[in-house]
Amino acid sequence: MSRKEKIVILGGGFAGLNVLKNIDRKRFEVHLVDRNNYHGFPPLFYQVASSGLEPSDIAFPFRRRLGKEGHAGARFHLGNVTAVDPQSKTVTTDSETISYDRLVIALGTTNNFFATPELIDRVYTLKSIDEAIRLRNEVISRCEKAALEKDEETRRKLLTFVVIGGGPAGVEVAGALGELKRYILKREYPEIAPDEMTIHLVEGSGRLLAAMSEKSSRDALEGLEKLLVDVTTGRVMKSYDGERAVLDDGSEINSTLVVWTAGVKAQPIEITGTDAGTLFGKGGRIITDDHCRVAGMDCVYAIGDMGIFTDGKYPRGLPQLAQVAIQQGRYISRLINGTGKGPFRYDDKGSMATIGRNKAVADIGKFHFSGWTGWMAWMFVHLVSLMGMRSKLSVLMNWTWSYFTYNTSLRILLHGSKYPLRRHD
Amino acid sequence: MSRKEKIVILGGGFAGLNVLKNIDRKRFEVHLVDRNNYHGFPPLFYQVASSGLEPSDIAFPFRRRLGKEGHAGARFHLGNVTAVDPQSKTVTTDSETISYDRLVIALGTTNNFFATPELIDRVYTLKSIDEAIRLRNEVISRCEKAALEKDEETRRKLLTFVVIGGGPAGVEVAGALGELKRYILKREYPEIAPDEMTIHLVEGSGRLLAAMSEKSSRDALEGLEKLLVDVTTGRVMKSYDGERAVLDDGSEINSTLVVWTAGVKAQPIEITGTDAGTLFGKGGRIITDDHCRVAGMDCVYAIGDMGIFTDGKYPRGLPQLAQVAIQQGRYISRLINGTGKGPFRYDDKGSMATIGRNKAVADIGKFHFSGWTGWMAWMFVHLVSLMGMRSKLSVLMNWTWSYFTYNTSLRILLHGSKYPLRRHD
Repeated sequence: MSRKEKIVILGGGFAGLNVLKNIDRKRFEVHLVDRNNYHGFPPLFYQVASSGLEPSDIAFPFRRRLGKEGHAGARFHLGNVTAVDPQSKTVTTDSETISYDRLVIALGTTNNFFATPELIDRVYTLKSIDEAIRLRNEVISRCEKAALEKDEETRRKLLTFVVIGGGPAGVEVAGALGELKRYILKREYPEIAPDEMTIHLVEGSGRLLAAMSEKSSRDALEGLEKLLVDVTTGRVMKSYDGERAVLDDGSEINSTLVVWTAGVKAQPIEITGTDAGTLFGKGGRIITDDHCRVAGMDCVYAIGDMGIFTDGKYPRGLPQLAQVAIQQGRYISRLINGTGKGPFRYDDKGSMATIGRNKAVADIGKFHFSGWTGWMAWMFVHLVSLMGMRSKLSVLMNWTWSYFTYNTSLRILLHGSKYPLRRHD
Repeated sequence: MSRKEKIVILGGGFAGLNVLKNIDRKRFEVHLVDRNNYHGFPPLFYQVASSGLEPSDIAFPFRRRLGKEGHAGARFHLGNVTAVDPQSKTVTTDSETISYDRLVIALGTTNNFFATPELIDRVYTLKSIDEAIRLRNEVISRCEKAALEKDEETRRKLLTFVVIGGGPAGVEVAGALGELKRYILKREYPEIAPDEMTIHLVEGSGRLLAAMSEKSSRDALEGLEKLLVDVTTGRVMKSYDGERAVLDDGSEINSTLVVWTAGVKAQPIEITGTDAGTLFGKGGRIITDDHCRVAGMDCVYAIGDMGIFTDGKYPRGLPQLAQVAIQQGRYISRLINGTGKGPFRYDDKGSMATIGRNKAVADIGKFHFSGWTGWMAWMFVHLVSLMGMRSKLSVLMNWTWSYFTYNTSLRILLHGSKYPLRRHD
């Protein structure tokens, strides 16, 4: 028997994991490379940041999944991918060089600070579990400091939070901070008057959740206002020096805690011997053909948030959503297995965002859901798309339970995590 | 009505928490100071280190407890205590100065490196949840590195672990590492041959668990040998340069990961205007009279691991056990409430240690338990002494469940915690 074809998957997010899950390991040798040893669940990172969930509730170690099947035909590699060489068919990480027969690039995105790269050292972000824990620790730490502070001015300064970006991540984190202000402060911090905490949300476009229906935008705005969040739309932050956020109309917000959710770009990757100008499109994403193949390369695919896939409905590329990543992951595995052919077709299942603890807005086809119904829809869709295996149900039940009870046992301050993050960009 | 008397409790461990729980807050104003915002459960720190439990499973935020009672008559202060001034009746922390009418000192212990203070930068320790997370990350990180390593020699080097100290903490962490070697490696790391991992346990006295019965020592030794741990007794580590541990018989163990569990000392504290020579005894602990009062100070108590309380049976001081701390905490609250008087009397309920996942040894009165029975006894005793409130039962059930299923979902590597710890000594 000839050697098995070697498939290397870069990134174990929704896209990469769905390739791994569905590929035929009897016929292919599969290698997964990720900078973390677990698959994270980005839709709930904001809940880790707001002490609603623990990292382990939304992180699934890759080796646990591989171990169930005795690791037959699959290997995990911890590493940061630095370069791909299509000539020698190798991938280089910070620890090793791996050869491939076929390559799936699915590294996802990281924060994009556009014209203000200096923000990287001044703001808090939410693109990984590590970043979420860092924000959690900072928020708890400020509440504790404010509780000991005698000067009201200083307390207000410690407790003025600005969220930049009114997409799902921004709306969700602002909502979670709003719950802290509205419900938790008076229960746990009698030393602080709730109105001493201020939460600003600044969105550049005319409305929140601009990619969703206008009804969803209105519901989100109403939900956040009930949670005492000050929402500003049509304004962009031009600069931030660590103390003062200056908006494009010249107005200023004094704050020492800014959360940036206003932009993403593809994880940077070097593809040697190619013309970067034609390979990469907007936001550093890789342009692909209708089979998710990187242009000019037969056996290299780019999927999920990292690829730019255009069709008639999306001439500028599919949206960067979990649904696209999951569907492309499954598509690629069928393509490699030989059980599917023809171009990839995106089946839009709608989009959603949560506002606060048990409310959500959802646009599914022509239907709009909000409040509790929206939240049930949110749960249902994520359950259906994520849970392939029975064993994961227990994890899902666990976080559902935590979510409803809002177990404040999680509001613990771990000093070990207070130190600088390893930066990915 | 006159001003309420102000009771300040330093430290929210078993001792301090039991004062807080039982003191009459209608009559006294209680302030708790702790360097963490949660009460940790040290008997299970080793399980956090071995990915068996999450920090939130064994950490209870103080504000959650206070919040249940509307914070009536109680306040929490996050801070590191630096000094006590008995003349002005004040306590200084790194954030503030707090006055008191009566003071309860219950700061517990930290690591003691005796004649080798340089070890602080070279070894891993287990005296806090932060330290446990640091060890967890290091162990997982080494397994991942070894899985990518082609050279067997280097793999063995990465996977040689030395535990110094054969008391309960040392036996428990060595047992947990033994389970990793015996059960988890082959399931999750097919790249590593289990015999490439070596676990040494070095104990200075003639037997493991020297404070317990000889039968417990024998059971512990047998249990660890089944888990493939190499146990050496009657040997002390004289030096460790980060690569080589030299024992007192001149023998050497090459290892880059040493876990130190061989000694504790009281948390350092300055008590101004007093004679440190007569105030502090062995290990920096504060000498008290038979009412747990600090000698010569009417309204200052030292309890738990931090105090030296002697009686006929324990002329050198009570053992540093949770049971002593809990009983002294309750005693002090009764003393302050006026509902109890007379000297403190220690009721020895026995001692226990766990070996591996579901085995334990226990000496209770004249009885010795081991294996599964010992483990049930361990659970029962901790349940009885810890759980005053119904709501904590859910947490207990949670960790019991995790413990039995050994949920490997927790084996996640958080980079944020990889950075240096805030040192407490």
